[in-house]
Amino acid sequence: MDYPNDQAPGAPIRSGIPEHGRIPKYYAVKARIAVLVGELAEGDTLPTERDLALRYEVSRETVRQALRELLLEGRLRRQGRGTVVAGPKLEQPLSLASYTEGVRRQGRTPGRHLIGLDRFPCPETLAAETGLERGEPVWHLERVLLADDERVGLESTYVAVSRVPHLDTDFEPDSSFYAYLGDRMGIGFGDADERIETVLATPREALLIGTPPALPMLLIHRVSRDTEGQPLERVRSLYRGDRFSFSTHLDGTRQPKQ
Amino acid sequence: MDYPNDQAPGAPIRSGIPEHGRIPKYYAVKARIAVLVGELAEGDTLPTERDLALRYEVSRETVRQALRELLLEGRLRRQGRGTVVAGPKLEQPLSLASYTEGVRRQGRTPGRHLIGLDRFPCPETLAAETGLERGEPVWHLERVLLADDERVGLESTYVAVSRVPHLDTDFEPDSSFYAYLGDRMGIGFGDADERIETVLATPREALLIGTPPALPMLLIHRVSRDTEGQPLERVRSLYRGDRFSFSTHLDGTRQPKQ
Repeated sequence: MDYPNDQAPGAPIRSGIPEHGRIPKYYAVKARIAVLVGELAEGDTLPTERDLALRYEVSRETVRQALRELLLEGRLRRQGRGTVVAGPKLEQPLSLASYTEGVRRQGRTPGRHLIGLDRFPCPETLAAETGLERGEPVWHLERVLLADDERVGLESTYVAVSRVPHLDTDFEPDSSFYAYLGDRMGIGFGDADERIETVLATPREALLIGTPPALPMLLIHRVSRDTEGQPLERVRSLYRGDRFSFSTHLDGTRQPKQ
Repeated sequence: MDYPNDQAPGAPIRSGIPEHGRIPKYYAVKARIAVLVGELAEGDTLPTERDLALRYEVSRETVRQALRELLLEGRLRRQGRGTVVAGPKLEQPLSLASYTEGVRRQGRTPGRHLIGLDRFPCPETLAAETGLERGEPVWHLERVLLADDERVGLESTYVAVSRVPHLDTDFEPDSSFYAYLGDRMGIGFGDADERIETVLATPREALLIGTPPALPMLLIHRVSRDTEGQPLERVRSLYRGDRFSFSTHLDGTRQPKQ
């Protein structure tokens, strides 16, 4: 390493250690385990909690706290009874392309698992967000998102029944909704507003996605319109924060600089 | 509320309660406090832990866990010895506009506090990421980001010394670096690649930003080029996950649909 403070750009500088040099004991252990993780390959098994506690001369509780953070950050993952080195986060484009397309581009197999499809009258807040009519029937399609059969997210789509009247009968819930819209219904995407934030998984979400409760997640809100500018869908996509990152390309020719 | 399961789009459905109906005790308390928070106004003080424990007939430890999650999520914030209802998250555009511009658009006053300015030879990884020459001198500018004097983030900028040779003497470290590049150096932004992920604050970061350690943060990696396509900067921007969200507009006319 030829960086000042032994740190690469992109990594937290000074290995996360404050200038006063005092850090919690678990964090010192975490930093040492992180070095160990760096020396292992993806899928390699980490020594047991007991072995790590002996090696670093700390309590198993201290080791557990260090491992918990490395798991939340996606550096490690549970596999059976053991803990193994995780692969890099999946990098999904922030674009109008579907989940399907983004996952395929990374050489993974996308999949979905239906949780439920309900219909209900469009409430005030949804009408205000999307431009749909208050009271008009809307579908709510809720699906778990899969990558190579691993559960990685949970997606709720709200769309007017008038747009896709037979969603309950002629749509395969494990297929791409965007492909259905385009190929079957001839509806093209015009534009969308997206907002991304980090939230903690609720117990229900954690159970459906198979994550620890309160895992930091990335939540993407989308409101989209068709090529005519008419309201299309409102989507709430929740992705495991330990497994996903999102990328975008910013072009200065379209954006005033400052 | 006129939603099925009492939930608005954008909110976790069924109030986060799994279909089997069993939830941890702290989460039931969290859901009740969240309702209480919804009835209060921004800045209102929450009852004490002791009062909440009496009200919900649970231990103070259970209340503390519920409050901890609401604090991490930015629904509550500490103020002196009390806990108050937090305002909405700041919504920053994912764009080539500077931090300064994004914060101003929301009616807040942006600010920065210099942590350090170092210079060192460009290492291999930074050269590979940016297209800079290995070994050429680069600046590392590290600053705490402020909004209305509140510390909200931490930013590391890596830029070639040849681009801004006098950064150490003729740049005001509490001003906009992008304004300096544009107005003083006549350098325009061409385009940038950004990647956003969630990470936990290190002890050093938590201390500098004044957050609880291990708070979920939003981390944005940026590599930008000038209008000639020449490498400009590599930026690592860390934002409090409880205070920020990021938005983008996606345009279908420029992006093939799927």
